[in-house]
This record gives sequence, structure tokens and C-alpha cells, in this order.
Amino acid sequence: MARKPSLTGFPEWLPAERVVEQHVLDTLRRIFELHGFSNIETRAVETVGQLLRKGEIDKEVYGVSRLQDDAAAKDDANALALHFDLTVPFARYVVENAGYLQFPFRRYQMQKVWRGERPQDGRFREFTQADVDIVGDGTLPFRYDVELALVIAEALSALELGDFRLRVNNRKLSEGFYRGLGIEDTASVLRAIDKLEKIGAAKVSEELQADGLSEEQAAKALALASIRASDGSFVEAVRELGVEHPLLEEGLDELRQVVEAAAVAAPGRVIADLSIARGLDYYTGTVYETVLVGHEKLGSICSGGRYESLASNGKKTFPGVGLSIGVSRLVSRLLAEGTLVASREVPTAVLVALPNDGEWLRAQEVARQLRGRGISTEVMATAEKFGKQIKHADRRGIPFVWFLGEHGASDTVKDIRTGEQLEAAAETWVPPLEDLVPTVTPAAQAGDAAVGH
Amino acid sequence: MARKPSLTGFPEWLPAERVVEQHVLDTLRRIFELHGFSNIETRAVETVGQLLRKGEIDKEVYGVSRLQDDAAAKDDANALALHFDLTVPFARYVVENAGYLQFPFRRYQMQKVWRGERPQDGRFREFTQADVDIVGDGTLPFRYDVELALVIAEALSALELGDFRLRVNNRKLSEGFYRGLGIEDTASVLRAIDKLEKIGAAKVSEELQADGLSEEQAAKALALASIRASDGSFVEAVRELGVEHPLLEEGLDELRQVVEAAAVAAPGRVIADLSIARGLDYYTGTVYETVLVGHEKLGSICSGGRYESLASNGKKTFPGVGLSIGVSRLVSRLLAEGTLVASREVPTAVLVALPNDGEWLRAQEVARQLRGRGISTEVMATAEKFGKQIKHADRRGIPFVWFLGEHGASDTVKDIRTGEQLEAAAETWVPPLEDLVPTVTPAAQAGDAAVGH
Repeated sequence: MARKPSLTGFPEWLPAERVVEQHVLDTLRRIFELHGFSNIETRAVETVGQLLRKGEIDKEVYGVSRLQDDAAAKDDANALALHFDLTVPFARYVVENAGYLQFPFRRYQMQKVWRGERPQDGRFREFTQADVDIVGDGTLPFRYDVELALVIAEALSALELGDFRLRVNNRKLSEGFYRGLGIEDTASVLRAIDKLEKIGAAKVSEELQADGLSEEQAAKALALASIRASDGSFVEAVRELGVEHPLLEEGLDELRQVVEAAAVAAPGRVIADLSIARGLDYYTGTVYETVLVGHEKLGSICSGGRYESLASNGKKTFPGVGLSIGVSRLVSRLLAEGTLVASREVPTAVLVALPNDGEWLRAQEVARQLRGRGISTEVMATAEKFGKQIKHADRRGIPFVWFLGEHGASDTVKDIRTGEQLEAAAETWVPPLEDLVPTVTPAAQAGDAAVGH
Repeated sequence: MARKPSLTGFPEWLPAERVVEQHVLDTLRRIFELHGFSNIETRAVETVGQLLRKGEIDKEVYGVSRLQDDAAAKDDANALALHFDLTVPFARYVVENAGYLQFPFRRYQMQKVWRGERPQDGRFREFTQADVDIVGDGTLPFRYDVELALVIAEALSALELGDFRLRVNNRKLSEGFYRGLGIEDTASVLRAIDKLEKIGAAKVSEELQADGLSEEQAAKALALASIRASDGSFVEAVRELGVEHPLLEEGLDELRQVVEAAAVAAPGRVIADLSIARGLDYYTGTVYETVLVGHEKLGSICSGGRYESLASNGKKTFPGVGLSIGVSRLVSRLLAEGTLVASREVPTAVLVALPNDGEWLRAQEVARQLRGRGISTEVMATAEKFGKQIKHADRRGIPFVWFLGEHGASDTVKDIRTGEQLEAAAETWVPPLEDLVPTVTPAAQAGDAAVGH
């Protein structure tokens, strides 16, 4: 992003940048729909009562009230506020519409969310998330945890962002291990382990011991967090630590299923990483994080997990498993680094030139025929000199200019990049496939193309 | 909309309803892009100062402030509020980014907007608009007014909503006519004429005379407003009223160009309707409204016009012409009346059944091959009895169930609507084209299909 947004934390893209963002969203939509996920959208506002149920995030929430109303009581649970993620609204939607939905309900949702936090590098106050979840009615087979890892691996591969790692762990595994060590407050251990990448093993060990763990317990917890494997070998590595607990066994078995299926279906992309903790309390099994190799500083671009109770209507609970992709953060980085590049900023493939102002309707007819075959076409509004009309196309990045035949001659079309001009008929001419619509390609590939590969 | 939204004025669609809305948005996107319009999005919030420049709409504006902040001074021009249309944000975007845009700048924008008004039938507090505009840098040829009428006629035709009328008038024509009658306060006449459909000619005449017009002036103004034509014949009808003014001539010429071009390119769709006034002050030439024939009570589903100064940065002004489609209002009516119907609510065409739990990875491989050829596919998570698996597909509206061949036999695929089951190979099988993705069809056509046409 070369330009500074006029409101800090609220990015806006130029047309060529939006082509890249739209490509990302279209690609995710295509993959999610190929896997049978339905799209929904929820309203931008929730009641404050809904949003604050998870607690502790109220400082980031934007309240919403009519300008004409008296100063609204912001602590009123019925006051409105902008959603800060897509999980809380989705939970409400599922409970409200349970009678109209078919379970397991597979949905993806791509919308803006708002957080009133201090904007830092890569942190926005308004940003787009793409969430994908499967939710059950009472129960949800574990296999969906495996499936979602495969869906995300396929979606990220389709984006051609380069190499990535989907790092998977399991809360049952960690919690069972800690319990097997005789630790009761397993949540505080998870919170400390979550800081491992930021503050390092020594400081985490200090913190764990301050929380009441023995030096040996802390050492074992850190040893567990150091285990990584792209196959089922992590199970043996855990066993060598000599800790036993039924919940640990359950977690080992689940994580092994995810990693072994991924080793077949998405080789090299999915690894067991026993340091992954995820801050949020509601995960109860599988947890996922994703890093772009070479862009580790960006943090996790796609995270999620299994939750035994996404929502409840009092009578039953809705367990789920899902992931969320931080689209704005990702796109902002891709744009800043030129990782993905749009071939042009306008959809237009052809500009129909005007020999004189009286030919505008004839030019529109040519345009109509081209559009009828899927070719994006504009018509000049005024008959300037042809040189000026070609310059108009060039300025807008339109690759072809169409010239109406005069005095009975055929129409011609000119590739203004090469200067090549050929006879053409509006009923049959097609541009080369790579010029039909703007394409978005990884920069390396775009570079290759420029030197002739 | 059968269900009542849990927050009045904030509609949310079920998956099958969202398929219809997405179809509308996809169709508009396709047509706009075929005509060379680039997509942009602007942030949801503007400063209160930006939003209130047009005055008088502050009561409808939703202010936005962090819950943790002290009661914000809502009259502070730098306070934030949700945008209530896409025109004001677009004007700001153009001024801010003028140095990065190519003019005439053709853009479409499809986003949610918010208005804190009392919700009535068809009025929402959160709704989606689809705007399409062409903006010039200093000047903008009139021909774009003609072009936009054709773009909108094509977009609405592509939606297959049935017959519609794009009703076009021209502010210069009306204003010139009133001035030719010796009237000075032409704006108040326009405001009175704008009420014609609501309160009738007699009451408008009373109002005009109360505003100081003579009975004859009022009668002429009403006579002008009664003129309608689908060709250039309206020019003669106006001349017969015996009023002359240079601005009237300019308006007649411009409106004739729109109607005559449309008579060629979109026969019967576009009519000159000299009663169209449009409330908003900023229109300076062409004005458009659109009614669905048979749904006149819905009001205008698509309105807009020419504005000589969309925005200004002090040094130069940016004239434009554009229209805005009320997508939510339209979709809500289409859903309520069943005008457009989705063929199914899930993207999924095929469910791969499991003969036993051990075959899940083999089933995933079949799914991968089908998806690789664009066929949306799900895999069962658990190996229930085949009858239950077929029921699972039926409940979700999935038309085909895939059975893995056992003991060396071929795979088979069953159309669960007809019961027909055939041998099939994952590398080559394709569903009938109409079953590939959910389709959205006019209800009449859907009915036709049901009786075998």
C-alpha cells in the first residue's frame, strides 16, 4: 500500500489493488463451494450483550447509535455495536435459524469486521475475514477436523502465495499431557506456552514455575512444545516423554489422523506442531495456525479449531470446527511486496474507436456483439484523432483498439502493445485467452513472462 | 422473507435465499465488467463532516464510537459514522485518489449502507446497494448519459425479473420549460411535481398555485409532466405547449439522444417520462428511475442521474453520471413473491458415500478428481447405512450420490431424484449441465421445467 489511508486503520484499495483482493476472494469462494460450503452473510451489528459474552474484548468494540438519539447508554446490553469477528454472529445465526438449516451445516462467510484497537503495522480497524466452518446439531464427527485441514490446504495452494505450513495441534493432547504431569491449572500452562515464539523457552519456563510448576514439570511442558513432525512420528516423540493420561491418548489419536490424511492429500503442507496453543478459551480439540514460509513475521494468516459448543439454545449445543483467513492483512502484505500482480486495472479488453461522432451507434453494435461473447468492451464517447483514442486505451491499460471499417472495408483490431493490426469481425474475433480478463499472477511468474518464458 | 429478522430492519438470508442474492450480485458484476467498469470498495465509515455536507439527513445517520471512549461529541465533524449511500464515499475516494485514477473513471461498487430510519415495508436499516458511475476530470461528454441507460437496461434484462421501464427525464428540459413560463423558483416546482404519483394532479396544482404560480403556469407544468413516449415524439408534444427557452432546447436534445439510442439498442425498455423529477438537488441534467412492470408499488428499483459536480478538490470539479440499484429491496421482494428461485441451497452436486469408515481417504480421492473438473463434491464423514447416506444427500438437496466400487467392481453414481444408477469413473463423469451448480431461474420458468418443458 503506497498511499496512506485518509483514516488510519481503514485501508482502501485502488482499482488494480482491488483486482488482486477480488482474485483472492473469488479463489476462496471457488474452493469453498467445490467442497460444498454454502455462503451466508450476517448483519454488521450485534447487540452489545451478544458481543461481550466472551468477555474482555469490550475495549475493541465500536458502538453504533443514531446521531439524533440522546447519548446512548453504552453498557445497555441491547445497544448495537459492530461485530469484531464472524464467529459470534455465526453462532447467533445458527441458533436463530436452526429450524431452517440442514446439519452438519457447512458455511463460508466473507465480510468486513471492525475493531477499535490502536492500528499498528498490519493491524486494521476495518478488515475482511473469510471464515469456513462445519457445525453439527448436538454432535459432529471428528473427521470434519481432518477435512477442514484439507480444504484450507487446497484453498491456500490455489492462491499461489508460495509455500505455507498449516501447523496443527490438539488441546486434548496438551491438556491430557499436563494432567498426566499432575498439573491442575492447565489453562494457565497453555497461556504461557502460547508466548513461546514471542518470549522464548527460558522466560516461559520462569513463568510456568512462577505459576507453581516444578522445574521438571516446566521442562516436560516445554519438551512437548518442541515436537514437530509432518507424519505420525510425533506420537512416538510424545511417548518418549513418559507421560500417560486417557485424554492425552485421545488427542494423540486425533492429531495423528489429521497429519496422516494430510500427508496423503496435501503432502508437506500440514505439520503437527505441539507448540500451537491458540489464546482463545473455546477451542476443545484440534487447533490450527498457518504461516507463509518466508513471511513468518506476518503471523498466522489462517487460524481456527474445534469447539464443542459454538452456541447453545438452552436445549442443545452446536459443536463445530472452522478456520478464519485474515484476507485484508494477507492482501495488504501481498500488495506491499508485489507478491501478486494484476495484469491490468480495468476489466476492458477492447476499446472501439470512433471514426466520427455519427458512428457511435454502429460502434455500440460492435461492442454488443463482443460483449455477447464475453469480451469486455468500451466505446469511445467522442471522435478524437485516432492517435488520441489509442492513447486513451493505453492510459487505461486496454490491450486492443477496434477500428470500424470505412467505405465498405472490413473492421480491424490493433494490439496496441505490439502494434499488430489485423482484419476482424465482431461476430467471431476473440482475444488471446490471457487477455480476456485481468489475470492475477505471482510476481515471479509475471517476471518470467516478461523475459519470454 | 418468511422469517422475521431478530433485529428489525436488519434482514439476514437463509442459504437458499443468499443463492438468489448472490446470483443478482454476480449478474450485475458480470454486466458491469463487460462494459468496462472497475470494482472498488470504500470503508464503511466516513467522518460526520463528510456525511452531513448535503444536509438534512443527519437524523438517519448511525454514529460509530469505541465503547470504551467517553460519550463522543456527536456533532464533532471528525467523529465517525456509517455511510448511508455509496455516492458520498465515492466522491471522497475520487478526490483523494484523483492522481492515481484514469479519467473518465468507470466504477461499480456493491456494498452495504446503513440508515437509522424507522423501518417500514421494504425499508431496511442495513441494505446492499449496487452503484455504477462514470466520472470525468473537469468535463464529461454527454454521451455517457446515453451509455449508462443502455448499461442499466442490459443489466436489468440479464436479471430476468420480467418487464421493466427505465423512465428518463432531463433537469435542463424541466427547468428551461419553467423559466420559459417566467417562473423563477424552479426548484420548488420540481419538488411539487415529484409528488405527482403520490398525491395526484389536483393537489400538485393547488400546491403550485400556493407557491405563487398562476393557474395557467400550473396547468402547463402539469401538462409537461404528463408527456411520455418511447421515441423522439415527445419533442413535438413539448413544442405544442408553446414554451421557449435555450435551456429547454438543450434538455430536449439530450433526452432525445437517450431515447433514440435506447429505441435501437434496448427497444421498449427506455421511455421519456417528463414527470420524473428526483428529489435530490445535485442532479443537473439526465435523471433516471426504473419500475418493474407489475411491481409499481415497489417504487424505483434503480435511480440516478447526471451531476455536474460530484466532487471538487478546490482546483477542479468532477462531473459524473450514475445509477444506484437497491439490491436488498429488490431481492427481498423477489424472495417474498418467489419471482426468482434457487434450484438448490448447497453448491454440492455429488455426495460420496462410504461403504465403511476405512474408505474415507479413497472417497476423498474420488472427490478430489471430481472437484478438479469443477464438480462440487462432499464426502460422508461416517459410514452409516446407504439408505441413511442417501437421505443425508436428499435432506441437503444434493442431486447425486457416488458409490465406491467394492471387490474390484466399478464405481456407480445415483441420481437420487430419479433413482437411476449408472457405472461411472471419477476421471470422466460429469453431471448434466443444469445440475453442475445451483441455478436461479424466474419462477414461471421453474414451473415450466416442473411440467416437462
